[in-house]
Amino acid sequence: MSMILGDIGNTSVDLYLNGKRTKFSVARFDPLSLSGEIYYVSVNSAFNKRIVTLENWYDLSKWIDWDKYYPTMGIDRIMVCEAVDDGVIVDAGSAITVDVMRGGVYHGGFIALGVRAAQEAYALLSPALDMSFNFEVDLAKMAKNTPDALTVGFLAPLICKIESLGKPVYVTGGDGRLLSRFIPEAVVVEDLIFQGMKKLIEKGVKC
Amino acid sequence: MSMILGDIGNTSVDLYLNGKRTKFSVARFDPLSLSGEIYYVSVNSAFNKRIVTLENWYDLSKWIDWDKYYPTMGIDRIMVCEAVDDGVIVDAGSAITVDVMRGGVYHGGFIALGVRAAQEAYALLSPALDMSFNFEVDLAKMAKNTPDALTVGFLAPLICKIESLGKPVYVTGGDGRLLSRFIPEAVVVEDLIFQGMKKLIEKGVKC
Repeated sequence: MSMILGDIGNTSVDLYLNGKRTKFSVARFDPLSLSGEIYYVSVNSAFNKRIVTLENWYDLSKWIDWDKYYPTMGIDRIMVCEAVDDGVIVDAGSAITVDVMRGGVYHGGFIALGVRAAQEAYALLSPALDMSFNFEVDLAKMAKNTPDALTVGFLAPLICKIESLGKPVYVTGGDGRLLSRFIPEAVVVEDLIFQGMKKLIEKGVKC
Repeated sequence: MSMILGDIGNTSVDLYLNGKRTKFSVARFDPLSLSGEIYYVSVNSAFNKRIVTLENWYDLSKWIDWDKYYPTMGIDRIMVCEAVDDGVIVDAGSAITVDVMRGGVYHGGFIALGVRAAQEAYALLSPALDMSFNFEVDLAKMAKNTPDALTVGFLAPLICKIESLGKPVYVTGGDGRLLSRFIPEAVVVEDLIFQGMKKLIEKGVKC
């Protein structure tokens, strides 16, 4: 396929062409600068207004079988699920979404706070808890100092639950590689969202 | 014992006498109003200045064997640990502290966000995640709507980790009863901090 895939967020436009990713700032990106066919998902309603009249932009949210998921589920979260028939999908961004697919069927999931959001929430609780996580911590041990107590408190419960959900575990998102260090069986797939989009287009099921 | 025990926080003074607890606002509480012996722990440095000259106020933080714990560990957290020789101690307040004691020895612990702090952190992430937790949720299932996805995302990892730490599990703090609904083996002990203080006084080990 030589089509362009696009993941439109609130601050960036992430384009994927022939296995290569390029990120643009939404504010500086001109949709008219692309002439080929663009298949995209978007959570940015202001951007959607700018492309509504463009005939070469295809909104993949219209191709989704929404009965498989739930109405308020994020489109980017659905796309990473579409990439996986069997497994646990962890998307570690500003939030960390964890979803389970079995035999191509969505089995539900949950939303945890992202690394930065959790760290900020600790800092808001008390100046004594305003410190950086220690990602060298050993999660198998309980902590005996404050940075470790926060890091273990954030990571150990999350990893415990993810590992209880079975295998394989696919990890993606900005903090995916960081998180994967604590999940021995995890497979990091940076382009998982684009793999989901490709798979959806190949199926060609347009509702 | 007919002595008064006191837990001094940043906003309230929690007194304990003959099995009864009474809460006062720090601002309206006059330390001179108590004439008997008061054994207390305090995280409130402004309040500490008001009682430093009072001879009937005994600071229990001076009775602690600090080598057992770590220097920046909260005094209230140490006190609930002092109450337990063997077990997992969960104190669910603005933060949720989880600590392990085995044979009277502190094995470490961790600090998770409290219920309210977690809910506020989700709300800060996105207006779409600004909703109340659903405490009727079934944590054994993955979620298929947003409030459940947030509740499962906050509770299921935490409960998973707590249950992995062994038994018995003692739960205390303002959200203790709420949290205990999800931990079948949990014993709720509302006065755990005062039990720890009593035990410390009975040992009479003054450093």
